[in-house]
Amino acid sequence: MEVAVVQMKTENSIEENLRKAERMVEEACATKKDLVVLPEMFLCPYEAQNFPKFATKEGDYVFHRLSNMAKQHQIYLVAGSVPELDEEGKVYNTSYVFDRTGAMLGKHRKVHLFDINMVGKHCFRESDTLTAGDDITVVDTEFGKIGVCICYDIRFPELFRLMVEQGAKLIVVPACFTLTTGEAHWDIFFRVRSTENQVFMIGAAGALDENGPFQSYGHSLVVSPFGDILGEMQQEEGILSATIELKEVEKVREENPFLQHRRLDLYEVRKKDR
Amino acid sequence: MEVAVVQMKTENSIEENLRKAERMVEEACATKKDLVVLPEMFLCPYEAQNFPKFATKEGDYVFHRLSNMAKQHQIYLVAGSVPELDEEGKVYNTSYVFDRTGAMLGKHRKVHLFDINMVGKHCFRESDTLTAGDDITVVDTEFGKIGVCICYDIRFPELFRLMVEQGAKLIVVPACFTLTTGEAHWDIFFRVRSTENQVFMIGAAGALDENGPFQSYGHSLVVSPFGDILGEMQQEEGILSATIELKEVEKVREENPFLQHRRLDLYEVRKKDR
Repeated sequence: MEVAVVQMKTENSIEENLRKAERMVEEACATKKDLVVLPEMFLCPYEAQNFPKFATKEGDYVFHRLSNMAKQHQIYLVAGSVPELDEEGKVYNTSYVFDRTGAMLGKHRKVHLFDINMVGKHCFRESDTLTAGDDITVVDTEFGKIGVCICYDIRFPELFRLMVEQGAKLIVVPACFTLTTGEAHWDIFFRVRSTENQVFMIGAAGALDENGPFQSYGHSLVVSPFGDILGEMQQEEGILSATIELKEVEKVREENPFLQHRRLDLYEVRKKDR
Repeated sequence: MEVAVVQMKTENSIEENLRKAERMVEEACATKKDLVVLPEMFLCPYEAQNFPKFATKEGDYVFHRLSNMAKQHQIYLVAGSVPELDEEGKVYNTSYVFDRTGAMLGKHRKVHLFDINMVGKHCFRESDTLTAGDDITVVDTEFGKIGVCICYDIRFPELFRLMVEQGAKLIVVPACFTLTTGEAHWDIFFRVRSTENQVFMIGAAGALDENGPFQSYGHSLVVSPFGDILGEMQQEEGILSATIELKEVEKVREENPFLQHRRLDLYEVRKKDR
């Protein structure tokens, strides 16, 4: 399975960002690719007040441009995330997933909103303008099942257990960590989540824009089911390619049966009925 | 709160190991200590066939020697772990926890047994001779609540959520990772578990014995609730001391409310009734 991450800097207009994404996906697909991943909020400078301004509906032109990228290159596309407007006027941080024909396989609405206040470092409140999603997202492909979650979702092990219960062997995470949280936690969270769940992981980050409103840590990466980093970028724009083999998940789960050793007689991670 | 980890090499007799532990705890307490931690299976060379041979009962002379270390130095002692024989002849990997008077505050029986088979690297089956414990272990001290688990238990996020639900602000982990799993995963698991649960953590490892049956990774460490390593040893015998302030946990939980942001309306980690 040939995968690529597009690590791009976000510009100030939807059209400019769509064009850049189209160009970079095309560049990534110059050699055969099966899956391409874009970063979180690649269409919209990362500020809470921008999300409603840049929001579009599922089925709108943004959605079609993304679907067309998948169709044109016959790839699975995890289309980073974009602000999604629903019928009631609520805005979500949403990752659309398209198949090789451009049909939507699923979408993930970020479940955990990023509201933090590190005194003297940074303060960010997504919940000022965004609504949280309520669903676990796992889609089916010819390679196996792929889970999708967004950025801050990675901090919550329960969500990963629920994706793995639904069969995920690869978990894709469009994300923009800050410079502070990135330096402190980016790599180790990807490595631990992949190890404890025995899945491949792909993190797709925005590139660092020193003049932008949000300084993204970058460092897009691909991680093995034993927590080894198979490829990692620095902070500049560019494309990260890797070859992964989802069948390896079975071998890792057999040799080190971490999942099997969960004491499911003692505890469980349960999705609540709502 | 003044804490110390005793990182010691395990010798071939219980008596020799008890004396070494007594000497090293005394050395650690040359300056004031509140809590001292010993490594996993510090009494018994780490081979499955040794556990029944070295096993003693709660209340036996081993237990009293450990209790006396706590009483003599007026410290809380997480007494690493020892093979514990129960009334039915079952053997557990057990960590006794004593208070400043030498009274037992609680004990943790390793919940997840280490049975792995990394082809060409190592194979180990604790379950050949050990029985798994079934309890979550959190004890109360004048500083706040302390959770205790053992080594392989660290790979299971559910157990940590349950300790935190019971109020743990510090989690102590006597452990012996192998050289392979240590190099791959030791630091990152301590750092992620402390971050996602917003607790201090202490890992107490055996020292590397190049001629022993089991090559322990060492690297005993103390980690902050934001995942920063406050102190870490190499592989030799020795003592690691650190000052930690459990009140900091509140501040970290307020600034970065990771625990509060769990979507407990969507999922829960539930302890099952048995």
